[in-house]
Amino acid sequence: MGDIFGHVFRISTWGESHGGAVGVVIDGCPPRVEVDPKAIQRDLDRRKPGQSLITSQRREGDEVEILSGVFEGKTLGTPIAMLVRNKDARSKDYSEMLEAYRPSHADYSYDAKYGFRDHRGGGRTSARETIGRVAAGAIAKTLLAGRCGVEIVAYVRSIHHIEADVNPNKVRASQVEKNAVRCPDPEAAEAMYEFVDQMRREGDSAGGIIECVARKVPPGWGDPVFDRLEADLAKAMLSLPATKGFEIGSGFAAAQMKGSEHNDEFYATKGKIRTRSNLSGGVQGGISNGENIVFRVAFKPTATILRPQKTVSPEGASVTLKPRGRHDPCVLPRAVPIVEAMTALVLADHYLLQKMNETE
Amino acid sequence: MGDIFGHVFRISTWGESHGGAVGVVIDGCPPRVEVDPKAIQRDLDRRKPGQSLITSQRREGDEVEILSGVFEGKTLGTPIAMLVRNKDARSKDYSEMLEAYRPSHADYSYDAKYGFRDHRGGGRTSARETIGRVAAGAIAKTLLAGRCGVEIVAYVRSIHHIEADVNPNKVRASQVEKNAVRCPDPEAAEAMYEFVDQMRREGDSAGGIIECVARKVPPGWGDPVFDRLEADLAKAMLSLPATKGFEIGSGFAAAQMKGSEHNDEFYATKGKIRTRSNLSGGVQGGISNGENIVFRVAFKPTATILRPQKTVSPEGASVTLKPRGRHDPCVLPRAVPIVEAMTALVLADHYLLQKMNETE
Amino acid sequence: MGDIFGHVFRISTWGESHGGAVGVVIDGCPPRVEVDPKAIQRDLDRRKPGQSLITSQRREGDEVEILSGVFEGKTLGTPIAMLVRNKDARSKDYSEMLEAYRPSHADYSYDAKYGFRDHRGGGRTSARETIGRVAAGAIAKTLLAGRCGVEIVAYVRSIHHIEADVNPNKVRASQVEKNAVRCPDPEAAEAMYEFVDQMRREGDSAGGIIECVARKVPPGWGDPVFDRLEADLAKAMLSLPATKGFEIGSGFAAAQMKGSEHNDEFYATKGKIRTRSNLSGGVQGGISNGENIVFRVAFKPTATILRPQKTVSPEGASVTLKPRGRHDPCVLPRAVPIVEAMTALVLADHYLLQKMNETE
Amino acid sequence: MGDIFGHVFRISTWGESHGGAVGVVIDGCPPRVEVDPKAIQRDLDRRKPGQSLITSQRREGDEVEILSGVFEGKTLGTPIAMLVRNKDARSKDYSEMLEAYRPSHADYSYDAKYGFRDHRGGGRTSARETIGRVAAGAIAKTLLAGRCGVEIVAYVRSIHHIEADVNPNKVRASQVEKNAVRCPDPEAAEAMYEFVDQMRREGDSAGGIIECVARKVPPGWGDPVFDRLEADLAKAMLSLPATKGFEIGSGFAAAQMKGSEHNDEFYATKGKIRTRSNLSGGVQGGISNGENIVFRVAFKPTATILRPQKTVSPEGASVTLKPRGRHDPCVLPRAVPIVEAMTALVLADHYLLQKMNETE
Repeated sequence: MGDIFGHVFRISTWGESHGGAVGVVIDGCPPRVEVDPKAIQRDLDRRKPGQSLITSQRREGDEVEILSGVFEGKTLGTPIAMLVRNKDARSKDYSEMLEAYRPSHADYSYDAKYGFRDHRGGGRTSARETIGRVAAGAIAKTLLAGRCGVEIVAYVRSIHHIEADVNPNKVRASQVEKNAVRCPDPEAAEAMYEFVDQMRREGDSAGGIIECVARKVPPGWGDPVFDRLEADLAKAMLSLPATKGFEIGSGFAAAQMKGSEHNDEFYATKGKIRTRSNLSGGVQGGISNGENIVFRVAFKPTATILRPQKTVSPEGASVTLKPRGRHDPCVLPRAVPIVEAMTALVLADHYLLQKMNETE
Repeated sequence: MGDIFGHVFRISTWGESHGGAVGVVIDGCPPRVEVDPKAIQRDLDRRKPGQSLITSQRREGDEVEILSGVFEGKTLGTPIAMLVRNKDARSKDYSEMLEAYRPSHADYSYDAKYGFRDHRGGGRTSARETIGRVAAGAIAKTLLAGRCGVEIVAYVRSIHHIEADVNPNKVRASQVEKNAVRCPDPEAAEAMYEFVDQMRREGDSAGGIIECVARKVPPGWGDPVFDRLEADLAKAMLSLPATKGFEIGSGFAAAQMKGSEHNDEFYATKGKIRTRSNLSGGVQGGISNGENIVFRVAFKPTATILRPQKTVSPEGASVTLKPRGRHDPCVLPRAVPIVEAMTALVLADHYLLQKMNETE
Repeated sequence: MGDIFGHVFRISTWGESHGGAVGVVIDGCPPRVEVDPKAIQRDLDRRKPGQSLITSQRREGDEVEILSGVFEGKTLGTPIAMLVRNKDARSKDYSEMLEAYRPSHADYSYDAKYGFRDHRGGGRTSARETIGRVAAGAIAKTLLAGRCGVEIVAYVRSIHHIEADVNPNKVRASQVEKNAVRCPDPEAAEAMYEFVDQMRREGDSAGGIIECVARKVPPGWGDPVFDRLEADLAKAMLSLPATKGFEIGSGFAAAQMKGSEHNDEFYATKGKIRTRSNLSGGVQGGISNGENIVFRVAFKPTATILRPQKTVSPEGASVTLKPRGRHDPCVLPRAVPIVEAMTALVLADHYLLQKMNETE
Repeated sequence: MGDIFGHVFRISTWGESHGGAVGVVIDGCPPRVEVDPKAIQRDLDRRKPGQSLITSQRREGDEVEILSGVFEGKTLGTPIAMLVRNKDARSKDYSEMLEAYRPSHADYSYDAKYGFRDHRGGGRTSARETIGRVAAGAIAKTLLAGRCGVEIVAYVRSIHHIEADVNPNKVRASQVEKNAVRCPDPEAAEAMYEFVDQMRREGDSAGGIIECVARKVPPGWGDPVFDRLEADLAKAMLSLPATKGFEIGSGFAAAQMKGSEHNDEFYATKGKIRTRSNLSGGVQGGISNGENIVFRVAFKPTATILRPQKTVSPEGASVTLKPRGRHDPCVLPRAVPIVEAMTALVLADHYLLQKMNETE
């Protein structure tokens, strides 16, 4: 279990990093949504390794094949199956994984859970699993943009100590794509690039924060109890590899505030009810209030580093691990499209759920 | 939709703050689990208002009635229904709510979603909804303690600027219950109490952070993709009223770290595989690794404050709100048992899921 | 698990026959649906025992209490909790159940499943469990009638060898309610009544068939694969106590037909596409086609009979059972509203699911 | 929605008859189950068209490709993705489908639901959709056989007026496979073959009944309320194309019986509790009782016939349809492995669910 996500717009991803392919099935996408294979491929290309010096050098074409659910450029309302073949799986690089549990990877916990493991890679915890999410997210984005004009933009907010200056209400996707780091603040982006490159050279890695904004989400999406919009977003984000935290609106800073500072005052303008500040992050009582939905996700530094590390074998013997594989000194640039995809999936789900409340 | 939580140990809560009652149905609790109504009541008493000067003065007996699923002190394996009557619902206090959207409450977003609302209270976003969660969580705790020895302890880590000094590996529940704030660091607790009391006198409110530890969770619980243990915990926590953030292990601090600092080294001791540090927070690749599961939840300051606030009526007219109801200057002391309950529910769910992987 | 039914209009029933109460929680009913407690009570009264000489003499007021989700006569869009107290539970009548497995009851299989059982009654397999379904179904009926004009009428088609002559396209609810048997063919109804009364006097019981028609269901509800309308109806019906079979349209008779006889010819009339015959039973490819949905459910004779029966104790000792409790010589008259309720629940679910396909 | 089946052992099928491929993803299969690709292929070959003169002459290799979830011949506990390419899709044969709704096919109801359709075939209602079910069912069978020794045998019980004489307690799979009809009574099989061949020559088709038995299912699988074993089986069977009815044990015959005839007397033998008769069909109160599970499924005659039929165009104009495509004069021989597969999926699901009730 655990490989299906969503309430009514549901995706089911499958595939190991070292199996034949990875893919996704979308169940619940409504009919008559335009599907542009190039747009899907574009997001997959943003996610794939080998884009620049600062991402993993594993080379994968990652070409998506749409196998069902789409006819003459539109969804049929039936399951959409997409797959991407695994090509560049150099199994030999991973032979040591049989003899040692890699620190802060899932090798040990995976063994404890399943009692059996494809030792050639990270299995389902591999970042390759996210290919299906990105492909599905691209379709969710189109649905949301076409039906409601929703815009979703994610970007790198910080890497290690370097923080960018970004206004989530104005940032544009084109600004994000201007550099390899996917940070729309050019100066910060440059500093980040240099820092990550240094990490690469040192065989080390760096963490950071991705911020995401969803604009033009109408008020009324979400649910007041378990399926709160922020709860579903938190689940979506913490289900991504390497994430350690999620915050929405004021986030952890709210913990140091007073109610008189934190409350968002309502006012009316042009027939709409708006709030002057947006510490709520676009969500009140679990339901969108029409303001921009803004949240942040903390990523830890990649666990794979090219330095000797002490660990143990499955039998408990002390081992010193000297990794020689490829490594991603910072996962964030490639994680940006993944965060966008998961956001789109959560919002598409709640868009459909809210349709059931309409009387027409 | 949105009122059912869990994959196989599923709870379904119901009830408005101003309806006849609130309650819960547990579906999927296994048979032969001991149920002590006093233990359930004890957790409900820890959650209920009116416990001290610094919590809401709304007086509710909050006595739980178990209506099904339990026979001769043990679960039957069938749905367990529990309810608590609403008693002290002074509707008159809330009459202004028809005329003004309360800032940072869900009144407006609720209207946008449902087009119809019980204006006498917060409906399902009311903290009373959590009664069902706490009652169900008490049974989940018993299941986990009895079958695996799992210990769950939550406590107030900080309120506004005051931070406690607590060791999650050692903190005991009895230390948490020693004061009205539910902070196991006595000095910090005193400072917190005074600060919250000051907020109460000023008609203001304060945010803070709750930390929770789950000890003795065996390795192997969780899932590597969507139903990662941290993803389900994040969803559980962000589904609570007034929460703005979640982090596990190193959390947001990980964003400023290098892989060489962050990785948790494995070692073997007494036939067990352990990690020397625990920046992972007890979870690797979404699956428990046998270390303590440690996470933090950020709570915003309560939205209800006793100060004039500018807002609008449903028709968009400017209104100044002068709240006269009761208010909770800080939600955290009462939220401690709720955080514990949600943690127990997530863990009980994954305990049962993992049973399906066993070959016996 | 197993106590939640429905995809998006979900009900969760709870309660044992000999516990404090039985009830239901509806999750997913849209807001602004009118709720008439009298209409709910009316269906519960049609279901309750003690209505006539030919039903069980167990006396239960079965008065429903609505505890949440309804405000000023309309649904709030939040969970609707309803309960009915158990009153006339004469535990002493059931004392023998500890010592012997009653033939064709669930005592033995229940023990095998749970290893623990409330021996005072049938637990969740008791017909009392259906109270929650009937209460929820009454609300689903109102939703369907108000939004789409759907009419659902069930009736006793046959008891033992006595078959009624009924036209499902024309039968009215008022005709069904004219007699204690709930058979709209008055002559057959009289013969059935006499036969069931004879069974009662002989301490025996009788099976039969209930037919149900849903009229004015628009074309397009249902799904082509697993959640076919007939699949969900079949599941709904076979989830009722004492059912052994389900057939839709031509049903088992189709097995003896040729395609040239069975196909329903299309024609157009008044701007609508219709079929001349309706052997499909209103469903083609799992999806409603606008014709009347007609299906039948086979009920076995009640397992409780007032005759000595050979059986065994839980330890395997031979026992002769001499039941002295109350008994229902024929379950069908009381099952009519239950079949209607389950039909309404399935249709309400698919009504909501189909809203997600609309572009507006 | 509607393309996911199962509670914890869940399959998600995808694919149109005229798209690139059809397939399935299994989520929830436990780790360490042996997987023999040849066994999967064997069941697919039993399902595929072109096996004999009396099945459709559409030629498909139907070779399964396992893309994930299996490593070194065993399941990993992760999603198992399998696909089969569509090869022999002669689109030209189906060109008429744009101009006419085929009687008793889903063309019209599909249009009403989706407003958009791949007119080249039956889309998801095509029998090709069942390929994924059969592949998944083959793995479920292995799980059940390996862990509990469960044997599932389905066979043709009747075609049109010809009924076979079969003892479900003794029938063997090898007897079923001895002839093209998949009927273990050789005389009946011959008569059936001749009748179906006559239908083929006449351009007509025939309905029939498949019976299925599951032996060695331990007592205790199933659930007393919604997820009764018979309810899940009924849903599984009615979710298959062309099915019109389901009955278990005594089935519709129970409607003409008295309780004194129908009850299954318990007795004890060799430390086991058994019933002397098995009118219950192996299930009591929704839960298996250790006896053989026996049920029957009614199939209508195939809707595709090679005779002129009156119908309408999507615009409502009268049309006479003269089908020239390939046709399957009787779907039952190929449906036998599909019924077995769905039975295995339901039982594997309840096998896993029951593991959660175990204490160690």
